[in-house]
Amino acid sequence: MKVGLDIGGTKTDAVAVDDNGEIAGRVRLATGWGPDAVIRTVLEAVRVLGTQDAVDASSIRSVGIGIPGQVEPGTARVVHAVNLGVDELDLAAALSPHLGVPVQVENDVKAAAFGAFALHGGSGSMAYLNLGTGIAAGIVSDGTLWRGARGTAGEVGHISVDPRGPLCRCGQHGCIEALAGGGAIAERWGRPGALPVRDVFDAADAGDPAARALRAGLATGVAAAVRVLVLTADVDVVVLGGGVTALGDRLMADVAAELAASAEASPFMRSLHLQDRVELLPAGSPAAALGAALIGASRSELDQTGVLSRG
Amino acid sequence: MKVGLDIGGTKTDAVAVDDNGEIAGRVRLATGWGPDAVIRTVLEAVRVLGTQDAVDASSIRSVGIGIPGQVEPGTARVVHAVNLGVDELDLAAALSPHLGVPVQVENDVKAAAFGAFALHGGSGSMAYLNLGTGIAAGIVSDGTLWRGARGTAGEVGHISVDPRGPLCRCGQHGCIEALAGGGAIAERWGRPGALPVRDVFDAADAGDPAARALRAGLATGVAAAVRVLVLTADVDVVVLGGGVTALGDRLMADVAAELAASAEASPFMRSLHLQDRVELLPAGSPAAALGAALIGASRSELDQTGVLSRG
Repeated sequence: MKVGLDIGGTKTDAVAVDDNGEIAGRVRLATGWGPDAVIRTVLEAVRVLGTQDAVDASSIRSVGIGIPGQVEPGTARVVHAVNLGVDELDLAAALSPHLGVPVQVENDVKAAAFGAFALHGGSGSMAYLNLGTGIAAGIVSDGTLWRGARGTAGEVGHISVDPRGPLCRCGQHGCIEALAGGGAIAERWGRPGALPVRDVFDAADAGDPAARALRAGLATGVAAAVRVLVLTADVDVVVLGGGVTALGDRLMADVAAELAASAEASPFMRSLHLQDRVELLPAGSPAAALGAALIGASRSELDQTGVLSRG
Repeated sequence: MKVGLDIGGTKTDAVAVDDNGEIAGRVRLATGWGPDAVIRTVLEAVRVLGTQDAVDASSIRSVGIGIPGQVEPGTARVVHAVNLGVDELDLAAALSPHLGVPVQVENDVKAAAFGAFALHGGSGSMAYLNLGTGIAAGIVSDGTLWRGARGTAGEVGHISVDPRGPLCRCGQHGCIEALAGGGAIAERWGRPGALPVRDVFDAADAGDPAARALRAGLATGVAAAVRVLVLTADVDVVVLGGGVTALGDRLMADVAAELAASAEASPFMRSLHLQDRVELLPAGSPAAALGAALIGASRSELDQTGVLSRG
């Protein structure tokens, strides 16, 4: 049995996966703030999982963790996980002594990409495009996660698609993330609310011009990211996930309309059939936790057989 | 010994590669127009190569061909090689009976990417960005060419980076190719000349405002392509090749200035060190012919051992 955890800024999602690849248990807890509280959250999640009926705690062989930060290649050290109050933390060193099994760590978007790929049937190629506070993608082909040379694979959020577009927190103008990132939209909307992007959609429906502009920018940015992923990596499918996809069909309708408009204008774009290649990750899908479990198990097996993990 | 050919719109470049991977012979011929003439060009190039001192014609075991068109995956059939007057042609069927060895075919940019990777030392990851009439890239990582799902891997030329940019032949506005493609620049320059992009640079140096705008667009487009390749595929190095790179240092200086400007504006872009990751393929490099030879030989070996070629 293998355990996977997706440590989010507010919640931690944990699953136990049996030897058939089925999810035997799942638990969600609030994530603590800072290194010590994050570690306590992981230990508590694994403990609670072990108490579930279909989970045999003694048969857990590996723990994989997806975390919103940079993971140093070949290590379990995460740096700059700012949403968790973590500047630098070696999760394997902190957790393995308590858990008694190998612990592997991966960036959360890459873990979600790997999990989404498994949930999608595990063949062909896929990009998972995470629409959260920020925007980033993970690319999987033939069961292999594209890690890249220096940790920026899938960082499509910081590709500028409009030199006159809004200023991005990265310093450039018109980045995909400045147009379509949940954080950038909430900031420019500037009104309080639990779900600012949903408020923007509601206000746009009610005719608010500022909201309409923000909503149009979201569709522009997501469609641009889809085009970048297909025209660079030529993945079969782009799966959308992350907090902003809670908008569901309202988001998909806007993105589809934007892709249809560019297909209308361009026979080349039309030939790509992009509308048929974009999907929504089902709401509540444990993609990131599942992906973390699979990555954790596969790397632990590699470690145990003496084959160097590719980090 | 393996032979590789790069069939260009005007010239065909052919090399013979010995068992140590060294280039033992090289010949360049004018390319004929239309299917029959293209086939005659290939046969003549192989015949002339066989007469060269260091080439033993009887030891040629495979022929690989890079061609500017779409190659149907898993076949040697090229479609839409419009620059050669070829609508559809099965090169293996046409050539193998005459040559008596297996013939493999690959898109020319992908072949050049594979050859550039070998010339660069054959490790890590690289994108080869071809700046010719059009713009496209090939991505190689750990010795494997990224082929993608449906034949558009590396088609970064048709990513729009400015919604108010010039109309692209594909129907979109502000495509990288509309800004930086040699064909688009020549068309907008609109004056006769053997090397329109060089004329544009000369006129820009002399203060011509239209030429300055075109020249600035070239740098903008190339820099955008470099950012897309690093932020999506995270390759170690982007190698620039193709006809427009005959401008050499004049082109590189403009691209470096453009990358420096975005690094100045953005700490994130600065952290990528893009200026240090862009290189120029040496003038006259046989990258595409070499790549074609290597691809032809490796696939032929796979075929002979009964392992299915991955197309």
